[in-house]
Amino acid sequence: MKKKTIWDLNRITINEYKAQAKEPIIVVVDNVRSLNNIGSLFRTADGFGLQGIVLCGISATPPSPEIHKTALGAEDSVDWHYFPETLEAIDWLKEAGYTICCLEQVEGSTMLQEFRREPGKKYALVIGNEVDGVDPAVVNRSDIFLEIPQRGTKHSLNVTISTGVALWQMLTH
Amino acid sequence: MKKKTIWDLNRITINEYKAQAKEPIIVVVDNVRSLNNIGSLFRTADGFGLQGIVLCGISATPPSPEIHKTALGAEDSVDWHYFPETLEAIDWLKEAGYTICCLEQVEGSTMLQEFRREPGKKYALVIGNEVDGVDPAVVNRSDIFLEIPQRGTKHSLNVTISTGVALWQMLTH
Repeated sequence: MKKKTIWDLNRITINEYKAQAKEPIIVVVDNVRSLNNIGSLFRTADGFGLQGIVLCGISATPPSPEIHKTALGAEDSVDWHYFPETLEAIDWLKEAGYTICCLEQVEGSTMLQEFRREPGKKYALVIGNEVDGVDPAVVNRSDIFLEIPQRGTKHSLNVTISTGVALWQMLTH
Repeated sequence: MKKKTIWDLNRITINEYKAQAKEPIIVVVDNVRSLNNIGSLFRTADGFGLQGIVLCGISATPPSPEIHKTALGAEDSVDWHYFPETLEAIDWLKEAGYTICCLEQVEGSTMLQEFRREPGKKYALVIGNEVDGVDPAVVNRSDIFLEIPQRGTKHSLNVTISTGVALWQMLTH
């Protein structure tokens, strides 16, 4: 098998990226501490062609050498906003017509594999702090709760991996 | 909504984990350089209840403080083997009846969303180096090629995120 070259991959410029239609999904980052994780989220949002990222609370913002190290430049292609309070971001997105999906293990949450996108709807996927998860006040303001079933000894994937998995389900169902 | 507590999550011990039935999937790590990435792969394998991880070439092995930092102990619950050469690992797995799935952008690769597991089959998911991807000799020895469609400026997700996404597709289809 021949591996695809950089030409086959049809890599686009930042301007071409900004001009193309996006998936109607925004990732809301509720107080994620690690700069590596923030950078990685930008790279994922770029790869999946999302509308943008909303960084909240202690989540760091570009420009930052540490974010760049894992974003590899995706921090320039992906639109982002910053809100000091995650609840402000939630209200802003609700007013703009987004359905708030909270990626969190709560009582009665929907197992991720059951999730189906409703045509025409826009979604905000809220992900939480590495240790504490999504803030309970933000959980209470959410519309849908998504849980990745886990069977191991830890019951927690890395937040950027959970986000990638949840986005894949949302994009393909 | 009430967030689940540690008790609700029914977290199990390492011995209980080792005793439970596993998903017939093994992750083959072809020369992954970052110790953070190795640790993260252990945590994902634990969360998804996989049969194990095969570390090859320059991929670091436990015990290691850096691996522990992102594995959070999953390096003790998940079975793993080490092979100096990835091709040896592939031959070992083929003899044991595993179908070799290579996560790589190659000509004619299957788009990940089209992948369906065949009942009764065991799969080895081969993932490659952060910069060079899967070694061409290993690509040539593989049975199935899986590609995550990407539309951004980078055309590369972080390897641990790609792995999480690919595993989710394999586990739910």
